[in-house]
Amino acid sequence: MKSKLSLIALLALTTLTLNAQRTILNMPDIPGYVTLKCDFHMHTVFSDGNVWPLMRLDEAWRDGLDAISITDHVEYQPKKNYVPVNHNAAWEISQNRAKDLNIILVQGTEITRSMPPGHLNALFITDANPIDTSDFMAAVGAAVKQGAFIQYNHPGWKAQEKDGIPKLYPVHQELITKGWLHGIEYFNEYEHYPLVMDMCRDHKLAVMGNSDVHGIISEVYKTPDYTQRPVTLVFARERSYEALREAMFAGRTAVWYGDYLAGFEEYVAPLFRAAVSTRAPFKVDDKNIWFELLNNSDLPIAFTGGPAGAPAEISLPARSAVIVKADKKYLAEPIPYNVSNIITGSSSTLRVEITPGK
Amino acid sequence: MKSKLSLIALLALTTLTLNAQRTILNMPDIPGYVTLKCDFHMHTVFSDGNVWPLMRLDEAWRDGLDAISITDHVEYQPKKNYVPVNHNAAWEISQNRAKDLNIILVQGTEITRSMPPGHLNALFITDANPIDTSDFMAAVGAAVKQGAFIQYNHPGWKAQEKDGIPKLYPVHQELITKGWLHGIEYFNEYEHYPLVMDMCRDHKLAVMGNSDVHGIISEVYKTPDYTQRPVTLVFARERSYEALREAMFAGRTAVWYGDYLAGFEEYVAPLFRAAVSTRAPFKVDDKNIWFELLNNSDLPIAFTGGPAGAPAEISLPARSAVIVKADKKYLAEPIPYNVSNIITGSSSTLRVEITPGK
Amino acid sequence: MKSKLSLIALLALTTLTLNAQRTILNMPDIPGYVTLKCDFHMHTVFSDGNVWPLMRLDEAWRDGLDAISITDHVEYQPKKNYVPVNHNAAWEISQNRAKDLNIILVQGTEITRSMPPGHLNALFITDANPIDTSDFMAAVGAAVKQGAFIQYNHPGWKAQEKDGIPKLYPVHQELITKGWLHGIEYFNEYEHYPLVMDMCRDHKLAVMGNSDVHGIISEVYKTPDYTQRPVTLVFARERSYEALREAMFAGRTAVWYGDYLAGFEEYVAPLFRAAVSTRAPFKVDDKNIWFELLNNSDLPIAFTGGPAGAPAEISLPARSAVIVKADKKYLAEPIPYNVSNIITGSSSTLRVEITPGK
Amino acid sequence: MKSKLSLIALLALTTLTLNAQRTILNMPDIPGYVTLKCDFHMHTVFSDGNVWPLMRLDEAWRDGLDAISITDHVEYQPKKNYVPVNHNAAWEISQNRAKDLNIILVQGTEITRSMPPGHLNALFITDANPIDTSDFMAAVGAAVKQGAFIQYNHPGWKAQEKDGIPKLYPVHQELITKGWLHGIEYFNEYEHYPLVMDMCRDHKLAVMGNSDVHGIISEVYKTPDYTQRPVTLVFARERSYEALREAMFAGRTAVWYGDYLAGFEEYVAPLFRAAVSTRAPFKVDDKNIWFELLNNSDLPIAFTGGPAGAPAEISLPARSAVIVKADKKYLAEPIPYNVSNIITGSSSTLRVEITPGK
Repeated sequence: MKSKLSLIALLALTTLTLNAQRTILNMPDIPGYVTLKCDFHMHTVFSDGNVWPLMRLDEAWRDGLDAISITDHVEYQPKKNYVPVNHNAAWEISQNRAKDLNIILVQGTEITRSMPPGHLNALFITDANPIDTSDFMAAVGAAVKQGAFIQYNHPGWKAQEKDGIPKLYPVHQELITKGWLHGIEYFNEYEHYPLVMDMCRDHKLAVMGNSDVHGIISEVYKTPDYTQRPVTLVFARERSYEALREAMFAGRTAVWYGDYLAGFEEYVAPLFRAAVSTRAPFKVDDKNIWFELLNNSDLPIAFTGGPAGAPAEISLPARSAVIVKADKKYLAEPIPYNVSNIITGSSSTLRVEITPGK
Repeated sequence: MKSKLSLIALLALTTLTLNAQRTILNMPDIPGYVTLKCDFHMHTVFSDGNVWPLMRLDEAWRDGLDAISITDHVEYQPKKNYVPVNHNAAWEISQNRAKDLNIILVQGTEITRSMPPGHLNALFITDANPIDTSDFMAAVGAAVKQGAFIQYNHPGWKAQEKDGIPKLYPVHQELITKGWLHGIEYFNEYEHYPLVMDMCRDHKLAVMGNSDVHGIISEVYKTPDYTQRPVTLVFARERSYEALREAMFAGRTAVWYGDYLAGFEEYVAPLFRAAVSTRAPFKVDDKNIWFELLNNSDLPIAFTGGPAGAPAEISLPARSAVIVKADKKYLAEPIPYNVSNIITGSSSTLRVEITPGK
Repeated sequence: MKSKLSLIALLALTTLTLNAQRTILNMPDIPGYVTLKCDFHMHTVFSDGNVWPLMRLDEAWRDGLDAISITDHVEYQPKKNYVPVNHNAAWEISQNRAKDLNIILVQGTEITRSMPPGHLNALFITDANPIDTSDFMAAVGAAVKQGAFIQYNHPGWKAQEKDGIPKLYPVHQELITKGWLHGIEYFNEYEHYPLVMDMCRDHKLAVMGNSDVHGIISEVYKTPDYTQRPVTLVFARERSYEALREAMFAGRTAVWYGDYLAGFEEYVAPLFRAAVSTRAPFKVDDKNIWFELLNNSDLPIAFTGGPAGAPAEISLPARSAVIVKADKKYLAEPIPYNVSNIITGSSSTLRVEITPGK
Repeated sequence: MKSKLSLIALLALTTLTLNAQRTILNMPDIPGYVTLKCDFHMHTVFSDGNVWPLMRLDEAWRDGLDAISITDHVEYQPKKNYVPVNHNAAWEISQNRAKDLNIILVQGTEITRSMPPGHLNALFITDANPIDTSDFMAAVGAAVKQGAFIQYNHPGWKAQEKDGIPKLYPVHQELITKGWLHGIEYFNEYEHYPLVMDMCRDHKLAVMGNSDVHGIISEVYKTPDYTQRPVTLVFARERSYEALREAMFAGRTAVWYGDYLAGFEEYVAPLFRAAVSTRAPFKVDDKNIWFELLNNSDLPIAFTGGPAGAPAEISLPARSAVIVKADKKYLAEPIPYNVSNIITGSSSTLRVEITPGK
């Protein structure tokens, strides 16, 4: 046993970790697009949230996000005896902080009704006041008039939808017909709604995933271990407000929460290919090959349904490598797998092929 | 408050984390060379260590290492009543596991004497038995005859060197004169020896850093938080036994432990440049610019001694980004900093220049 | 923002955590008995384990255990080319360390056959050599002659028992008839075998829970979070070798692994009562009472099946308190609950009553 | 290798940890008094804090506190354009939550001036409005008229006191003379002010320690590891508002932050004795004894200055045990130690005696 590293050294080590920092979220870009990490649903003291708006920007910075929207309720104002109703307050307060932190801040608000129609976020608005009107269609119309992207929130939330099954009611069909609905939440807080994948596919809507945080991000997502909040991945031509907006109306999104990714195959397949790589076999004998499979992203990958002569399942954690032993024939042909944690529909997951050395 | 993510989902999440995995150590390659992460000093039950040799391979695989050497003592055999002395046993037992895990296994042994000469590792040997001889020079000679790389171990270890100051005694000078000494440990277990940097520079020796583990890597380096063990970074032409060996004899190494990197400027400067990048300023006003500084490596960077108009200190944690606010003049000229945790000599640290957007 | 606590202070804070320490496992004594925490199944390099025997004592000390047994296989000796077969070696090597650490060391060995009879541990033996004999009954007999406690190990281990269902084969029945079987493992490594509770009840055998560790305790039980290994709780008259032995032959045991406790009601009911307490209601209104429920142990408690007017479920984590809101009638009558993580039979869990303020 | 614990079991294990819980802070009572854990300095959106007042109650509940005071600034109201000035708002909003969580809520406010007099908290007030007056003495007088306990906050805060050295200016002397000053902060956020111990002793004031939190407790105190916030320990006759108040005016306090405790010997000595115990020696030979030293509290204990024949230093972590080896003479006499992390004055720490088996 030797004496410990000198005191000076240990000290520097400790202080290095005390300063503010921004996590680099490892979710790769895909060909032609940058992958923006976004959270378009959160609350502050200007409705039923518990924090001052600036905290939402600070949390987003720390968590490596590119864009957020603060979406306080129009109609639900439980603090109004102490905090006067001001639908644009969070936006006004937050703008400068967003510029200082290089976060794209999208003005938003949550239209809050009983089901149907339930709750909808209006994003990319310029003034929330005209949206504060009792007629639901008039409220959505006022947002759309400002160019808003309308998102149907947590459609299977049991507080509003007893059986937990998301549905498109006539009012939602009417919105779709008018072109007034642009996305639906698949992930919200801790929940997910499998059928939303099919709804979005059928109606060409964007799949959305957001935190809907009311309290503190680091407390909501820390049990038992710190997990990244649900985010909407937006595949944009560049990192700008206008490019973000264009991509969302074009439906170029996927959603990521914890160990799960969901989105249409055209987006999640290139994400997978950008994240996972193989090396050429380092060992070959008469029967088998051994090669490394690497994951450079923060999303773990769960391979299942492997064919004869290859592992039935492979768990490839985030930012890690594993060794795969497979039949020698896979020198000449790819190994097909299902990726059970990358969801492409209400009952489908991503199919991939692994080719050693490619 | 909503109900939690479905049970099936949480379950999959949990099981994903239970499988074996290999950490991808983020320490970049430098121009012309791959950066191999190596530990050339460790013990097993075949001397005074507490584990079976195969565990050393498994630990190295998990920790993302490229090469190791098991270096049991030739002369110190406290378990010989139960484990017969067999200097080549660890090597024989470990070879197949190394091939299965794609780890470069270097045969080694530790020549163990009181100070001077103290302890020396013979690496890249082919048979440890001829080294088991009472005459010290004969023992080293037997190793050198096999083509060994000789490393002077923990030269400031207080159990052998009361004042903790590493010294080159006449016997070491003799080794150097004969060309029989090739490297000196700067890091060993929890210790570091500042003067070793100068000794290595003066005598053209490789700077070495190793764990010298006797127990369990994950226990020795987990308090208070899991820290990577000391490693020798070897800058090799490719990832192979022969290229590793060539690089070590050529002195192309640096050493890394926890939050510290030490090595000659010709190696640590390109490592820094490969790890740290900047983005173009995202905000400019009359007086100042704001830009992001990013670190894609697992080594935190502690900038100190910043000039007027820039932060005096910047802590840039591993795999993170920070925002730097600086005087507008730095649009036109680089910002000089000292990197206080990258050591280039017994009393010098790395000088760098930061240029926004480059 | 203020400056940080002085460097000196932070430093002391860090170094305080680096030294060796013994966890105090909070599992209370019960009336009449001390609760000894024990692990009676583990391996070393003297069979198919990967560590030197002394590490087992050090791990036990750190983990707060009172007694262990090192139980290397008699018949399975995969390292014999390098480590000569010596059935008493681990015992000889470990005795002094056990005395220095105040751990009760029980000599043991594992009789290792295909199923049936499978694997059995002989505990409290004095010489393992006579047990190394080819006839199974003779081997057990040799142990019993030394006064051994015989434990049937992992009876549902799928490597030996395809369907995973533990069974008492004729050979086990014969052991029971002869009085040569004294306990069966309910917990082993990560597994549990529900039917063992009934077998032990029917045949008056001790319920056992052990790690069967071959590698490193802190690595086997750390994913995703450090979990305490499976232990056998022995309710002994005092903390001594003789009292431990008496209690085990008397069947006074329970088993604990992670968030689960299993044992006969006569032992786990008083453990529950020693661990969980309530405070008198701190708030009462026309309809309800509010009171604190406290858990002073390291075992979380999962209350389920609550009656009308009380929470259906209560999660009471280790070393924590929760507030319970219940109907006012529970001022006058106890609240019945099921404790779903305290197991009393193959299909039964502990029933308890909570009385505020008692 | 065996298969893992069944899915059902793992699942239950996971969900157990997701629910809200109250930490039981292990800091023992002392003879004659209960030890109340309190934080008397924190902010909300009603001054320069970032959270809604109810969060302060929820944080206190989770952290195991008995009493808190929300002390928004009277004079500093940076959010007044959006949140109207209302000095009693936080108190009004929080009262019911305090009753539901069984937390003693003390109404308070912070009188906020440049130095001198700096910042002072008025605790146990009944209406903050009369304190909003420009004359400093009038403001304190208005609080005292309501029966307030006046605390001098962070007297060495470098933003107000360049050299960091706390001082009693004439205005503070005047307060003391009038009986209008009752306590001084020794711990504030991350800082401590050694001289405060002497000031409190000289003037018979209570030593205070508080978080002064503006953001989120779990974020402010989580780097690098979760550390309990600074708290004032109040030694009260019972757990009630009146008993708390009586104890504070009587000066029966100590302060605890991270690994440090500070207070007058009459309070910290019995705390030490209630926390630390020994067992009778379990091993004795010709020269030495071996015995266990146990710490049942959440405060680690750093013993230093051990005499000849005993360890020079002993680190006894929270809720842990260590083995002490000492000269046999200590069977007959106590072993004197200094406790370097229990502070009793500006330059003194606690002296204790350890007697094995007592």
